[in-house]
Order: sequence, then C-alpha cells, then structure tokens
Amino acid sequence: MKLPEFADIAEAHQRIRSLVHRTPVLSSSTMNSILNCSLYFKCENLQKVGAFKFRGACNAVFALSEQQAARGVCTHSSGNHAAALALAARMRGIPAYIVMPETAPAIKKQAVESYGGQITFCKPTLEARETSLAKLAAQTGAVEIHPYNNFEVICGQGTAAKELIEDQGLFDIVMCPIGGGGLLSGTAIATRTLNPKALVIAAEPEGADDAYRSFHEHRLIPSVNPKTIADGLLTSVGEMNFRIIQRKTDEIVTVSERAIVRAMRMIWERMKIIIEPSAAVPLAAILENKLDVRGKKIGIILSGGNVDLEKLPFHEFM
Amino acid sequence: MKLPEFADIAEAHQRIRSLVHRTPVLSSSTMNSILNCSLYFKCENLQKVGAFKFRGACNAVFALSEQQAARGVCTHSSGNHAAALALAARMRGIPAYIVMPETAPAIKKQAVESYGGQITFCKPTLEARETSLAKLAAQTGAVEIHPYNNFEVICGQGTAAKELIEDQGLFDIVMCPIGGGGLLSGTAIATRTLNPKALVIAAEPEGADDAYRSFHEHRLIPSVNPKTIADGLLTSVGEMNFRIIQRKTDEIVTVSERAIVRAMRMIWERMKIIIEPSAAVPLAAILENKLDVRGKKIGIILSGGNVDLEKLPFHEFM
Repeated sequence: MKLPEFADIAEAHQRIRSLVHRTPVLSSSTMNSILNCSLYFKCENLQKVGAFKFRGACNAVFALSEQQAARGVCTHSSGNHAAALALAARMRGIPAYIVMPETAPAIKKQAVESYGGQITFCKPTLEARETSLAKLAAQTGAVEIHPYNNFEVICGQGTAAKELIEDQGLFDIVMCPIGGGGLLSGTAIATRTLNPKALVIAAEPEGADDAYRSFHEHRLIPSVNPKTIADGLLTSVGEMNFRIIQRKTDEIVTVSERAIVRAMRMIWERMKIIIEPSAAVPLAAILENKLDVRGKKIGIILSGGNVDLEKLPFHEFM
Repeated sequence: MKLPEFADIAEAHQRIRSLVHRTPVLSSSTMNSILNCSLYFKCENLQKVGAFKFRGACNAVFALSEQQAARGVCTHSSGNHAAALALAARMRGIPAYIVMPETAPAIKKQAVESYGGQITFCKPTLEARETSLAKLAAQTGAVEIHPYNNFEVICGQGTAAKELIEDQGLFDIVMCPIGGGGLLSGTAIATRTLNPKALVIAAEPEGADDAYRSFHEHRLIPSVNPKTIADGLLTSVGEMNFRIIQRKTDEIVTVSERAIVRAMRMIWERMKIIIEPSAAVPLAAILENKLDVRGKKIGIILSGGNVDLEKLPFHEFM
C-alpha cells in the first residue's frame, strides 16, 4: 500500500488551491487568557460545504483523468462527504452518485441535492449501503471515492494543516478530531514535514473511542455501537489512515460529551462562529486537561459547521 | 464643526492596526447564486469585543495625549461601545468609567466588567444617564468618548470599509446598517475616496427609521419610541454623523422585522457565523428587493455578533 507523503499534499494543494476557500485562522484573546495558551483555529467550518471534507473530495475528483472522470464518481455517505463530493463533481461537470440510507435526515438529502448529487436510497445497514454502491458503480462505471480511506482524499485533507502552518508559523501542538482518520492522517503528514517539532494530537469522543483503542493497542479495532453527539466521528478508522496515524501521530486522547458541548458553546459565544459538535472535540480535550497546554502555541483544525439550526428559536422572532 | 476626511481615517488605521483584528471577508457561492449578485461580507462580528465598535473606541482612546489619557475615559452605554471602550482603555492601561442603566441585562454588565470597566448604575432614563455621566466626568476628570458623535470614533469605524476595499478591490455598492451613524459616516468617507464610483447605501429597521426620515427630509429628526429586534440600531443619529451622511451617502432604505430575522438566519446557516440582528439589516434590504443588486459586486459590513446564546438549547445536550 503506497502511503501519501508531503509532496503529494503539496501537489494536491496546487490542484485545488483555486477551487477551495483559503479559510481564515481565528484567535480569541479572552479564551487564550482563560486557558493559559495561544490557540489558533483553522476555520474549516467556513470552507465550501461547511467542512474540510470539500478539500479531499475536490482533490479526488480533480485528480481523475478525463477518461476516469467521464463516467462520474460515487460514494455511500449521509454526511459532509456526500455534499462535498456532489459539489466537487458539479464543479468538474461530471455526475456524482450518492448512496444514502432512506432514514437520513431531510436536511442532509437537501444538501446533496442542492449541489446536484444523484441520490439512491437504501436500507439503513452497512451491508445494504455497500451492496447498493457496488451495483451503482457497476451500472454507471463511476469511480468510487471513499470518504477517508483514499490516497487523494487524505492528500486533500492535509492541505488545511499546510495552510495553517504557512499562515501562522510553527506550533508546539497541532490538533484535530478523529473519526475515519482522513483529516488526522493528512494533518499528521503535513505537520511532520512543515513543523517537525510539533506534537500531533487527535481528540476523540469517549463514546466512539475506536481510534484511541486502536492507537494504544497497535491494531485496528472497529467501532462498535458508538454513541456521541459528535456525529461526524462515528465511523471506524480506515486501514490506510491507521497506518499513517500509527507512524506520525503522537497521542490520541478522549473526551466526555459534556466537555464537547461546553467547548462548542465556548466557540459559538467567544468566537462568533458556528461549529458542529465534532469540531469542538479538540478544545474539549483542553478544557478537560487531557494535555499540558500551558504557555504553548496550539493550532486546532475546526472540522466543520453543519448543525441543524431548525432547533434554534428563530421562530420566536417571526 | 470639523468633519473627518479620508486622511484622518488613514491615520486612525496606522494607530490601531496592531490593536484590532484585520477581520476576514467571507463569501458564499450558494447565497450569491440565490441572490444573483456577488456579496462580500466584512466580518466585524469577528472583531475584538464582537463588534466594529472596538475600532472607534480604540482609536479614540489611543488618540488621546498622555495627559488627557491619564485620568481615564468615560461614556454612557449599555451596549457594544461600553465593552469596546473598557477593553481599549485596559489596553492603554487607563481606567474606563461606564454609566449604565440599572436595568441593563446581566450579560452586558458582565462583558464590561470582564474587560475591566468600572460601572456606575443609574435610573433607566436618558436624563439620569446624562446627569450621572456629567457628575462622573467632573469627579474623575475622565474624557467622555461618545459612541458615535465623535471625530475619532468615526475615523476608527471607517477603517473597516478601508480594509474591505483594500482586500477585495472595487465594489458597485457598499452597505452597512445605520443606528447612531458612526459606522455609516466612517464607511461613507472611506468609500468616497477609495472607491468613488460605488454607491454607499445604508439599511435601517422600519421600526427605528429616524435616519431614513432625516435623510429624506434633510433635517435631523430624533428617534421616538423605536421598536426593533435590531437592538444596536435604536439610537438617534448624531449631529456630526448626519452632516457626513447627508453629503456622502447615496440612499437609506428600511426593512421589516421579518426580513431581518430571515437575513440573520440565512447568514448563520449558509456562512456558519453568528451575527446579531443589527448586522443582518443590509442583507434584509437585499432580500426585500429594496435595491437593484442584479449582477453587482456588493460589500457589506457585518457590524457585530453579540447575541445572548443563553436562549439556545445547549442544555438539551448536557
């Protein structure tokens, strides 16, 4: 298995630079003084589609040859990757076929449709999703783009950390959340080359701690019945991702649900940006003192901002 | 009365450049395609203290001579200006005395206190506020910094439009909300010089339309019993502000409460940033077709992001 290297991330960055937002890096003096460290947040919640996932999907779609691309791309996903792949495909002018469980929330379906994705519904089991996807790929000849266990996707995700370090200089620690491991593996590769003295630390919900256990037991342990409000982090770590993470990550720590909500709220209130629970997980680790941050300069990748605002009391104003 | 010119804004920018955030300018392709125009949002909700007000307060505080500054600054305000003045004073190492109605929400008091402001409470009438402030100024010798009817405050506010045009090039239209007129007067002066072909258009809630009426009747009409959720826009336009606005603004339009809420929600959902209702007023004017925007490039200053998130259902997660 060929693993991505920094040169592959640099090439990805060249490819997608004009297609993605170079997202801002924000800081809060108040938070820094409360937490006794300097935090720099790379705002991938402000990325197209509202998540870093657009980087990987975009790189994977634009790395295809004309011939490969002609028949389109496909994936099974109900989350940010589905929307990201649909938009990237539309930007290249090719079809995106998305397999989605029939139980997916309406808001997720709408997002994929709004970017021109063609949805095929299936039963809400992993088996049904894989069978439907295989059938769809055979019928259409579309190239499957896995959400994280994919060379080009990992390279695309690594461009966020590359920009963060380019824009803000060297860090003592670089952090991101871990779900399937696409963001962490890209982040780790980019950081090891650009900022070799930095620690690369990932944070994971206690209720979905397969990466934590895999990392510490040195073998890939799948996620079984994960439960967390950080709904972007429910998936099991991918094989390619795990190999990279084992070699290039310094630590994985876990956090409580309570700390995730506190961290999310702190970022909404103090920084005036909307992040989804998954994006709050690294800050949650700092709030729970899971690592020594005193006096350190820390880069954190805020993974996304897609929360269902339907629950907010806007109607009280109307 | 000496009115500020562009050179004064440029000087203010030199003075405060290292003290304020150079806030990002964000765009949403989806919103642009829905609205048939290109919108560039200058994110002063991401400014220190969560509002553009920090620019003006900071310029006013740092423009004082050593001797003037030594005795501190004072103002009466229950909003963003109070917090902004407290922080600017703390950065200069001088006291800030804030007169605040005893009925002000706890969250506003906390904000001022957290930045080291010294609060004096008074009865919730304009007369009591002015009397208390005069007494306080006499006792302490502190310099009064008015929230908008102040030369240096106007110059500071004008730096937001200056940065917007420097960063994104020329616009067809530059927009901001109007309350007391500090932001609009600074924006108009900066835009007239840097981007003379652009229209400068302000938006105001129908329920607080004193600027709209003053502008169209060519005389300063005070705000009487204003009512709007855009609580930053309740004040009457200042005298210095009105003179500038009459000369340098192309149009003031009014918007409904419903459109303000729709615009606020659209920005939260599509752009993943938190803005206060006042900041949504220019987009509300576009949603209500109050100006012809088709195919145009429009710069909008998002004035602030201070909303009370206590009402949001975070507790449901806890």
